[in-house]
Amino acid sequence: MKQIKRFFTCALVGVVACVSAIAQQALSSRIDLRSGVVNDDHSVTVRYYAPLAKEVYLCGDLAGRQLLSRDEAGIWSFTTAPLPDELYMYWLEVDGLRILDPGSVHLVRDIASLFNYVIVGDRYAVQPVRHGSVAAVWYPSVMGMRRMSVYTPAGWDGKTPLPVLYLLHGSGGDEQAWLELGRTAVILDNAIAQGRCKPMIVVMPNGNMSEEAAPGYGSKGLVVPGIPAEHRMDGLFETLFPEMIAYIDSHYSTLTDRGNRAVAGLSMGGYHSFWIALNEPEQFAYAGLFSPVYFHPGQQNEHGDWVSPIYADCDKKLLQLNEAGIAIRLYIGSNDFLYEQNVAMRQRLDSLHIPFHYTESTGGHEWRNWRTYLYDFISHIF
Amino acid sequence: MKQIKRFFTCALVGVVACVSAIAQQALSSRIDLRSGVVNDDHSVTVRYYAPLAKEVYLCGDLAGRQLLSRDEAGIWSFTTAPLPDELYMYWLEVDGLRILDPGSVHLVRDIASLFNYVIVGDRYAVQPVRHGSVAAVWYPSVMGMRRMSVYTPAGWDGKTPLPVLYLLHGSGGDEQAWLELGRTAVILDNAIAQGRCKPMIVVMPNGNMSEEAAPGYGSKGLVVPGIPAEHRMDGLFETLFPEMIAYIDSHYSTLTDRGNRAVAGLSMGGYHSFWIALNEPEQFAYAGLFSPVYFHPGQQNEHGDWVSPIYADCDKKLLQLNEAGIAIRLYIGSNDFLYEQNVAMRQRLDSLHIPFHYTESTGGHEWRNWRTYLYDFISHIF
Repeated sequence: MKQIKRFFTCALVGVVACVSAIAQQALSSRIDLRSGVVNDDHSVTVRYYAPLAKEVYLCGDLAGRQLLSRDEAGIWSFTTAPLPDELYMYWLEVDGLRILDPGSVHLVRDIASLFNYVIVGDRYAVQPVRHGSVAAVWYPSVMGMRRMSVYTPAGWDGKTPLPVLYLLHGSGGDEQAWLELGRTAVILDNAIAQGRCKPMIVVMPNGNMSEEAAPGYGSKGLVVPGIPAEHRMDGLFETLFPEMIAYIDSHYSTLTDRGNRAVAGLSMGGYHSFWIALNEPEQFAYAGLFSPVYFHPGQQNEHGDWVSPIYADCDKKLLQLNEAGIAIRLYIGSNDFLYEQNVAMRQRLDSLHIPFHYTESTGGHEWRNWRTYLYDFISHIF
Repeated sequence: MKQIKRFFTCALVGVVACVSAIAQQALSSRIDLRSGVVNDDHSVTVRYYAPLAKEVYLCGDLAGRQLLSRDEAGIWSFTTAPLPDELYMYWLEVDGLRILDPGSVHLVRDIASLFNYVIVGDRYAVQPVRHGSVAAVWYPSVMGMRRMSVYTPAGWDGKTPLPVLYLLHGSGGDEQAWLELGRTAVILDNAIAQGRCKPMIVVMPNGNMSEEAAPGYGSKGLVVPGIPAEHRMDGLFETLFPEMIAYIDSHYSTLTDRGNRAVAGLSMGGYHSFWIALNEPEQFAYAGLFSPVYFHPGQQNEHGDWVSPIYADCDKKLLQLNEAGIAIRLYIGSNDFLYEQNVAMRQRLDSLHIPFHYTESTGGHEWRNWRTYLYDFISHIF
């Protein structure tokens, strides 16, 4: 019977899509329970049916923590003020219990937590423009087969050689982070359509050398994602990076001169990008450091594993890289908890008279900044 | 402060990954809250921290509806009996409120509902074998750009011509359904590694002509998914199918003779497959009908839109197709609500003396059957 209903009851789906999700009381009529809805004035309405609940809060970055209002039918709702263009994350709190909003199926994962999300405005929304392809691709490494995400631009014939951006996630991320939280495919589609950047391939590897793929996609089963304690910032990822470049250049039609190759990353990925650029001076003419981790040479990282030759001779490598020609763009939010590390990085670059472009935004160590940094960075490369 | 914690507190992540998800009471020590965990004996343990809850139930197909037991610390848990190899879907019910399990991040969407899932055993698990690529690809249609999923097998050089299976979803599905609920990439990876089937390209289109892509991936924004009322089974999808074949054959190295092309689908996708095979007798030598919708010619469908010439001359087209040579495999569960329609389909084929292979399984109109049908079907084609 349930099956028959699922198949034939078209009119109700979407209107009371979450009826079955609410066991507290059955709904007897057609009521709009769509939630996370962006209104014409760019306000957002959240709705939740729970007649027996005592209090329901909206949480996250839509509007801070807000008590919803209950109507006579038992539907709780809240509408925010009109909001700026952004991707917002939220959840509900029902009588002290954190839950995901059953009125929306749109979720993103940030490490081990899931959030509902809403996109206000055009910047991060899928536009009626031509869309590139996104592929999950496995490449051979001395560490075994590893998974990466590869964006190729709309209408590419697969033959015309393209420049390549290697885009690295932060600690706790994986090869899906830039696609899901970073909206990379949408940002690239829109920027290319607007003529803001050149068509390019974007390679998003998995930067955790202790895992082969994002949780659920590797052969270790449906593990709880976490921050791998090993092989995070010990030099292994940077050391093996050339095998990824070799795979991309042999499986895609690419422009292989350094002027057509860029590396950028956020947080741990900024740290990786910095050291990859330093150790491969002939490979990259552009480096994007988004809120990068920066351990002053001579310091150990928190695992005490300052051992890789990748991290040796920092000043010498920086001068060599500068000689080869490098356009460094450093981005940081004024409230970022890594701000002081970035002051140290700037001082080091300045002390060696190495030019770089510096952008200081508001905000902290967060995706709303990294999306903006990416949007800017891609317009300055190639 | 929250940011700093996220970055540096490695040891706790994965162990108390869902602490922040529980507002009822703070946990003060390290406690294992991983949930949806498959144990060595293939039982599954679900855990949920809610000291103030009055009753917590496990729901779904893991073990039916089961009351969890509460320990002194306020952790509710339940361990199932050892389970057969399968993908199971579940959710929790806390004091009458349906929620997703915060101890697991592994979710699948079925139309407009999200479920936690667990994979027991090897059949649908990612194995340590070589993995194919999965791409989200946009192709041009007279209806505008449309999104499809394309699986290409591990180690393919992109040049060796391959056979192609077109794999169609059911009503309410989209181009992600076969990948997420159907585990197509895993099934193909494992079957190819076992030598159970030939390496092939699998094309999973979006069969809802009123949408360009799965919800959230098209330019209509973050809509609530539903069953589109228009262009579902009115002949438009089947009529435009040749434009998809043309795209695939011009963008991938394929074997283009009918002996190397198959079409299969579940439910509505079985109906689509049937009519596509009938109308393109020179294109397909294999048809897989998994619990197909079947309206006896002469009947109208529920929208009364029996108008497309695609659906005319059924018997004549069947005989032509039989003449050209077609291997039809029909699968249905004995409890499927479409069982009677399938009796009618078999009678029609028998009355025309058209041979077909018939498999009747247990169970109903459900993914655990469709995954099995796919696993069998791919070993009989090409």
